[in-house]
Amino acid sequence: MRQRNLSRVLHALADGGPLSRAAVAAEIGLTRAAVSTLVDELLRGGLLVERGPGRSGAVGRPGTQLLLTDRGPCGVGAEIGVDHLAVCVMDLRGDVRVRTARATRNQDSAPARVLRTLDGMLSAAAGEAAALGLRPAGLTVAVPGLVARDAATVLRAPNLGWHRTDLAAALPGGLGPVTVENEANLGALAELWSAHHTPPGTGPDTFVHVSAEIGIGAALVFEGELLRGAHGFAGELGHLPVRPEGRPCTCGGRGCLETYAGVEAVLRAAGLEPGPGVRLGAVTERCEAGEARALRAVRQAGAALGIALSGAVNLFDPGQVVIGGALARLAPWLLPPVRRELARRTAVAAAGRATPVPVTASPLGPDGPLLGAARFAVRAALDAPGGLLGS
Amino acid sequence: MRQRNLSRVLHALADGGPLSRAAVAAEIGLTRAAVSTLVDELLRGGLLVERGPGRSGAVGRPGTQLLLTDRGPCGVGAEIGVDHLAVCVMDLRGDVRVRTARATRNQDSAPARVLRTLDGMLSAAAGEAAALGLRPAGLTVAVPGLVARDAATVLRAPNLGWHRTDLAAALPGGLGPVTVENEANLGALAELWSAHHTPPGTGPDTFVHVSAEIGIGAALVFEGELLRGAHGFAGELGHLPVRPEGRPCTCGGRGCLETYAGVEAVLRAAGLEPGPGVRLGAVTERCEAGEARALRAVRQAGAALGIALSGAVNLFDPGQVVIGGALARLAPWLLPPVRRELARRTAVAAAGRATPVPVTASPLGPDGPLLGAARFAVRAALDAPGGLLGS
Repeated sequence: MRQRNLSRVLHALADGGPLSRAAVAAEIGLTRAAVSTLVDELLRGGLLVERGPGRSGAVGRPGTQLLLTDRGPCGVGAEIGVDHLAVCVMDLRGDVRVRTARATRNQDSAPARVLRTLDGMLSAAAGEAAALGLRPAGLTVAVPGLVARDAATVLRAPNLGWHRTDLAAALPGGLGPVTVENEANLGALAELWSAHHTPPGTGPDTFVHVSAEIGIGAALVFEGELLRGAHGFAGELGHLPVRPEGRPCTCGGRGCLETYAGVEAVLRAAGLEPGPGVRLGAVTERCEAGEARALRAVRQAGAALGIALSGAVNLFDPGQVVIGGALARLAPWLLPPVRRELARRTAVAAAGRATPVPVTASPLGPDGPLLGAARFAVRAALDAPGGLLGS
Repeated sequence: MRQRNLSRVLHALADGGPLSRAAVAAEIGLTRAAVSTLVDELLRGGLLVERGPGRSGAVGRPGTQLLLTDRGPCGVGAEIGVDHLAVCVMDLRGDVRVRTARATRNQDSAPARVLRTLDGMLSAAAGEAAALGLRPAGLTVAVPGLVARDAATVLRAPNLGWHRTDLAAALPGGLGPVTVENEANLGALAELWSAHHTPPGTGPDTFVHVSAEIGIGAALVFEGELLRGAHGFAGELGHLPVRPEGRPCTCGGRGCLETYAGVEAVLRAAGLEPGPGVRLGAVTERCEAGEARALRAVRQAGAALGIALSGAVNLFDPGQVVIGGALARLAPWLLPPVRRELARRTAVAAAGRATPVPVTASPLGPDGPLLGAARFAVRAALDAPGGLLGS
């Protein structure tokens, strides 16, 4: 119970920025006295610092504001992309302190080779973190594939060519507990935790989050919780059939969304040959330059995405649809056809609403999964203050 | 707290049949002494009866079994279908004690007229219940449409032609609290509560339930809870686009599942003219007789349903798909094409499983929504034992 209350104080400060003791007490529903005892323990353990005086002066030492430390424990996030690796160190306040990325060709590379490179990047990042007075308290790795319930094994990552790969066992042990998680899920959690997505009065924590690297993934967040499904594989938007007898898909099906709106499909439709390093950025540039073929390619992808999302909206009734990942940068051209299809195809589900479901582009864009991974590690650390206090 | 513990005893007996005091105590995690006090109060209030001796004889009065009364409070369920009305009285044990149905033409009838007929049926059923020593403790009404969060107003029921109709205000007040609920949701809850759907080891309480009267609805049950979505409109499977530029749908979209697998579409494809009283039963008979046109119609509907369900399975990752309502009777001909499409189109989501998601027909079939409504009323009564005990 004490650990739980310590954790609640930490989360209140992580979510609400600097707060007075009284404000923390109000936030978590404990007495001022109880909160003071908890805060003293956290101050002694170096997890909090005091700053003051602040604006408020209601109760006790007026104006002294508490905030999480920017030294000591930190979370480490890593991202294994199809043609890049990235690492990021985040302090308990949620600020990114170290960040590195490297273009590598991971598609169809042996996992051991990719992990060797990642291991080097993690060591370097941990070294930089140490120089800043930070020590890793956990590592979360974002992967473009299905992850088993053990949060360690990649069951299948078709765009990497990986199959039943135990990632956790192959990662360095010195960074704290390791969690492996699907990148679309982490992108959605980053969105949830960043809180900018909340539109007033419309099921603020119930949304569909779409992301894309080569494949297209989605995550369903229902009342602030990620819906993982019976086996942990929910959110496979990329394989919704949008033209049932259309193009064959690598999954064995036909006419899946990915065959129309996946990165390779969009590149080809825009007249670009997919290959290492040739990504959606090239299409974005051509759209910005007003090139007709690229604009048409993105419009077509948007229509296909809108058809698939109509299915998701009819089934799941989200308060919002958020387009994240690389697709977010195409928003000016992608979103109008998405909205048009949703308006045509979700009329019944919209009966009780004044307007169709809002569709927005995530400001996090392609950073979502990496930031989500680091934040996941930070939040896991705040969940277990005993570990951070050495008790 | 006491009310909550009384309720837990009642639910343990509702779910687990006759149990000894010791078994109840083990089930709900209270001491034998605490349970005995609660049981005594429920016995005095007439909500439980004793029967004995049973097989067990471990502790205390050996073998005395407790069960819920089959007299006293009962739940009333009602169903407003497109061309029928039905009423059912269920005792606390879950046994149906009174049941009536009437063929009526509710499609495009004024709500007041339909409710007048229903009111007469409810009065007659309450009279029969009284003769059995039962008194209604709540009424739940199943409707084929979207229901507002107030559980009273039908926002839109296109197949009835109703729009923003406050049903609760127009129903009789003498049957206890009134709840209005979507029929697909109640069908799914009936399935959940009947517990026969549970396959060993595969997310037993996470499933998609499909039902059909004229339209096609679905409900998503996640870990034993109905997913209602941000506005309460989740589960609109009937308007998933299965052929994006296909037939126009009454919703304003194109190629919705309902235009291929809705009852009217199946009837027409089978060579039958839809109309009052002409329902799927006629198609079932023709399939049983081996008539080629009917068989083809059902196969085509199954393929369309399989495409839409592939979307639902890819997105939601259920442990099972259950086909309920009138469609359940077509299972021998409908399920093979449904399974074929799911096998083709859900390969990625199936990566971690040995087999595709199981698809079964509900044994409840068209009875699901009515039984679900009555059971909903019974469970609501068991949630509030104070009302039943007159305290």
